[in-house]
Amino acid sequence: MALLTRIRGPRDLDRLTPEQLEALAGEIRSFLVDAVSKTGGHLGPNLGVVELTIALHRVFDSPKDKVLFDTGHQSYVHKLLTGRQDFSKLRAKGGMSGYPSRAESAHDIIENSHASTVLGWADGLAKANEVRGGDDHVVAVIGDGALTGGMAWEALNNIAAAKDRPLVIVVNDNERSYEPTIGGLANHLATLRTTDGYERFLARGKEMLNRTPVVGKPLYETLHGAKKGLKDFIAPQGMFEDLGLKYVGPIDGHDIAAVESALQRAKRFGGPVLVHCLTEKGRGYQPARQDEADQFHAVPVIHPDTGLPVKSSGADWTSVFGEEMVKLGREREDIVAITAAMMRPVGLHAFAQEFPERVYDVGIAEQHGAVSAAGLATGGLHPVFAVYATFLNRAFDQLLMDVALHRCGVTFVLDRAGVTGSDGPSHNGMWDMSILQCVPGLRLAAPRDAEQVRQQLREAVEVDDAPTVVRYSKGAVGPSVPAVRRIGGMDVLAEPGAGQPRPDVLIVSVGGLAPMCLEIATLLDKQGISATVVDPRWVKPVDESLPPLADEHRVVVTVEDNSRAGGVGSAVAQALRDAGVDVPLRDFGIPERFLDHGSRGEVMSEIGLTAPDIARQVTGLVAKLDGRYDAERAEIARD
Amino acid sequence: MALLTRIRGPRDLDRLTPEQLEALAGEIRSFLVDAVSKTGGHLGPNLGVVELTIALHRVFDSPKDKVLFDTGHQSYVHKLLTGRQDFSKLRAKGGMSGYPSRAESAHDIIENSHASTVLGWADGLAKANEVRGGDDHVVAVIGDGALTGGMAWEALNNIAAAKDRPLVIVVNDNERSYEPTIGGLANHLATLRTTDGYERFLARGKEMLNRTPVVGKPLYETLHGAKKGLKDFIAPQGMFEDLGLKYVGPIDGHDIAAVESALQRAKRFGGPVLVHCLTEKGRGYQPARQDEADQFHAVPVIHPDTGLPVKSSGADWTSVFGEEMVKLGREREDIVAITAAMMRPVGLHAFAQEFPERVYDVGIAEQHGAVSAAGLATGGLHPVFAVYATFLNRAFDQLLMDVALHRCGVTFVLDRAGVTGSDGPSHNGMWDMSILQCVPGLRLAAPRDAEQVRQQLREAVEVDDAPTVVRYSKGAVGPSVPAVRRIGGMDVLAEPGAGQPRPDVLIVSVGGLAPMCLEIATLLDKQGISATVVDPRWVKPVDESLPPLADEHRVVVTVEDNSRAGGVGSAVAQALRDAGVDVPLRDFGIPERFLDHGSRGEVMSEIGLTAPDIARQVTGLVAKLDGRYDAERAEIARD
Repeated sequence: MALLTRIRGPRDLDRLTPEQLEALAGEIRSFLVDAVSKTGGHLGPNLGVVELTIALHRVFDSPKDKVLFDTGHQSYVHKLLTGRQDFSKLRAKGGMSGYPSRAESAHDIIENSHASTVLGWADGLAKANEVRGGDDHVVAVIGDGALTGGMAWEALNNIAAAKDRPLVIVVNDNERSYEPTIGGLANHLATLRTTDGYERFLARGKEMLNRTPVVGKPLYETLHGAKKGLKDFIAPQGMFEDLGLKYVGPIDGHDIAAVESALQRAKRFGGPVLVHCLTEKGRGYQPARQDEADQFHAVPVIHPDTGLPVKSSGADWTSVFGEEMVKLGREREDIVAITAAMMRPVGLHAFAQEFPERVYDVGIAEQHGAVSAAGLATGGLHPVFAVYATFLNRAFDQLLMDVALHRCGVTFVLDRAGVTGSDGPSHNGMWDMSILQCVPGLRLAAPRDAEQVRQQLREAVEVDDAPTVVRYSKGAVGPSVPAVRRIGGMDVLAEPGAGQPRPDVLIVSVGGLAPMCLEIATLLDKQGISATVVDPRWVKPVDESLPPLADEHRVVVTVEDNSRAGGVGSAVAQALRDAGVDVPLRDFGIPERFLDHGSRGEVMSEIGLTAPDIARQVTGLVAKLDGRYDAERAEIARD
Repeated sequence: MALLTRIRGPRDLDRLTPEQLEALAGEIRSFLVDAVSKTGGHLGPNLGVVELTIALHRVFDSPKDKVLFDTGHQSYVHKLLTGRQDFSKLRAKGGMSGYPSRAESAHDIIENSHASTVLGWADGLAKANEVRGGDDHVVAVIGDGALTGGMAWEALNNIAAAKDRPLVIVVNDNERSYEPTIGGLANHLATLRTTDGYERFLARGKEMLNRTPVVGKPLYETLHGAKKGLKDFIAPQGMFEDLGLKYVGPIDGHDIAAVESALQRAKRFGGPVLVHCLTEKGRGYQPARQDEADQFHAVPVIHPDTGLPVKSSGADWTSVFGEEMVKLGREREDIVAITAAMMRPVGLHAFAQEFPERVYDVGIAEQHGAVSAAGLATGGLHPVFAVYATFLNRAFDQLLMDVALHRCGVTFVLDRAGVTGSDGPSHNGMWDMSILQCVPGLRLAAPRDAEQVRQQLREAVEVDDAPTVVRYSKGAVGPSVPAVRRIGGMDVLAEPGAGQPRPDVLIVSVGGLAPMCLEIATLLDKQGISATVVDPRWVKPVDESLPPLADEHRVVVTVEDNSRAGGVGSAVAQALRDAGVDVPLRDFGIPERFLDHGSRGEVMSEIGLTAPDIARQVTGLVAKLDGRYDAERAEIARD
């Protein structure tokens, strides 16, 4: 790592020779494989952009120039070149974020991990430049997969219209997002890739010139520039130029000199220009290249030589869902599945293998996933759209207007709901149970264990006149939590023994927090406070049996891994008010703020979502009520 | 109306001659001008699609074939041809909806008025056809304006990828949405329009053939079909064919025979095909054609000859905002404005005239509006994005992730918030105060009158590290409501006189409902119940002074024109719980359902959001509390 350790900032790249740059790229790849295999993280995408990122930082002067990365999981090389080489605590509490982070560096602009946003950001920054008379360059790196997202189109349409507003778009085309990129766009990009007459011509010329003993590369550069006219004739710029965007490419994204040359031309162009770079995800790392599924898009802790996980994980929520979907697919021919470019991460790969004609990968296009689901349902099928909870936010309007308003039977399965941890603030699925509350007719299930995932998924796909939602956490599914009895649609998980006096506290447990809620009850019991633990199973609408049950207790406590604002707690509180049940309620959930990265346990602990924290607060509340009751008795007795 | 009155369904069109079809088109135009000038409604868009709709219903067999309209405001002709000719109560309670409506007719599929969805619906319906082995045709009509929305791109990308799945897309290209269509796409469509060599050729041929005495039009038809190869050579299909979509056009959308011919070809094609029709918004109605602003996109009740409004409306919320924006623009050079294709309806036209370089029409692209605003703010400006409340739902993820997570100072001005009435369920802005509650750091203002719009807009643009929202109703702004005094950031609007005992009820009034809340207080007073009325002004976060104020009352009542689920009432209730204030609260708002069209007053009355309804319920609640208190006293005294 002789070269890498000497890079403290982008300008340290300026003095390196072409040979040193090649060597640096090799060092960075070794570093990434070594570091990421120890911590887990996004390996494949970063291995693919080593040369591209080096070239970007040689041509543009960050942070004055704004170098923007879409989604941000491919920013590790950028971090290495901008003074951040301690990867020992990557994605861990107190360590480096897995995405760009403004708190880490002035070189980072966009923090969120939601795809297809970078062109919009770039358009805004370029407009600000224009209004303020600034001369910063704005360059946006976006994958071909992210171009399938509607936001990218909206932005391209705006960017292309301003012919004199400089802005450089780099398409990092590795033919995939998480999955191979789908759709008409992918086909068009493939056409561009295969009609690379110009690049082949250039490659021959470069080879020839490199054999000519000239100092540095000015001759090649000059020739390269002169070929502009020729290139425009040979290469089909296609739809991008139809929109009015200058198109440059395709360029070999692993040829630093070629990328630099293209970026220099783009930088000088004086208007919106698109540079089409071809790269390989997982480049230079054999286990990643050989991985058909996702080329090591994101990896757990792995052995660096083999790429195999160091420890195998147990059953997780996702695979429970995936297995049940296959069974449902066999039983019902009308069930179809939808994914937004994440077939495997959401657990639909087995269903896709068995029913390839009944599964749709719509690209990074959650809006289309939801609205096409409305069409599928209207056409007589029952679609199951499996998506990360945080990405459902993209499809809120479509869920509300297209699915709910039209009373379509569509099931949304929200994976990675609640606190997810290491991927940072934008990956937490902590909004769904808030924003979905106001969707008329929608029913929302939060299964507490594997058995309930299976059961509630089956209940959900039975509903054919309203949207249904099944949401569960990230990672390993907890132990089975049996019910003591059922009241209405709710499962009672624990209650004081028969013959005991009226219990003090009703704990309403949401989804996978059931074991924590049982622990709270145990802790309260030690304080002499009796508790009932109920899992409503379907948290929206609030079960009609809940208010009467609440009325049998002195305090109601709700526990959810979702924003407290407008969450299940608020819905339960409203149901109690509407039923005229004025039992005091305390709602525990995620406070109104974005959550830093760390393990799920660390984050839960930091926000006080632990059994001891909650038990302590409930104990205090009960004591206060006891005191208030005693005082009221005394006061009234005095009258 | 000799022809029109005999059309009971689409198949009645089959027996008409070309001359009769022309005459029918004329009758329909007269009918529309006459009917819509009496009721108000979407006039311009419908005048533009008369021939297109006739041709659609001759070529396709609705309702077996699915004829889908994007946005749906251009479905009046479709309604006339599918058995609905009573326009006397258009958009009024009990009358015909201004959009397609499944309750009205089996010919209607998509009800919601949000643009750019139709291609997603069509993709879903076509997929369902394929899975179920159906042979229905699916045809989707979308405006060029709606193609600027990202959803359209996501859908095109999916549709184009399935080469063998039949689906007909009709682009109704009138060069505008509400506003002239913007962006690279518009430029590309303009190119297609102006290189119409093929159509000119065809027009000449048709003219010649029409002079030839043949029975019907088979000869012309045959020739027309034979020209397909020629057309492909002359007309540039551009980006649509780059995506893999068969492109047919451009076609004169007012030539019924030409449109029918193109649609017949498209219907037979056996894969995804796009038919590009050129139409004129407001066609055949001189006042509309001469209107530079929006060609009578939507009109109030007008005089049919002049097109002038029958009664002029007073000052409305929108214009108050628009005037203040101009003042702010003069004072602060860093203020820029954004609209999603609705410059005039959101009141930004005056600002745009004075500061053309500081206003951005992003197209029907709310996502881009929000994310580019984050870029603008990061670039040192303060963007004000004015948008209808219902359309903000499209940009929720961007508001949360791009604006709020990055602590960008962006102001969202939500027009048409609350119950809007005549445009039906999808136009009500009744979700914003629910879904925005969970956005960390966001501040939300609900001004109660014109003065507060001006004042709170100014407070909003002062915030440079978080999103701010200012939301107000549709239509005329009510009377000025002065404050009695201020507590914290809240205005007390009414309270019992000095020396009175502790008041019974605290009424928390949200935004423009202040006069209603004052009326509630008056009605309660007649029942011997005293009330304080407070306007929190900023409803999120809940003012710190609210819980202590609530604690001085026996009951808290919140009144908002927003979904009750997770709205301001829930937020206030949570704030009281958190402060340990267990005063009973009742929250009044919009119940969890979609609202049928009708006047705002009728809808408010139907859902019980009136002063008498609320006063009656509060009276009952206070009486119940009195009774319960008495009973408790008696019980405890017995001990």
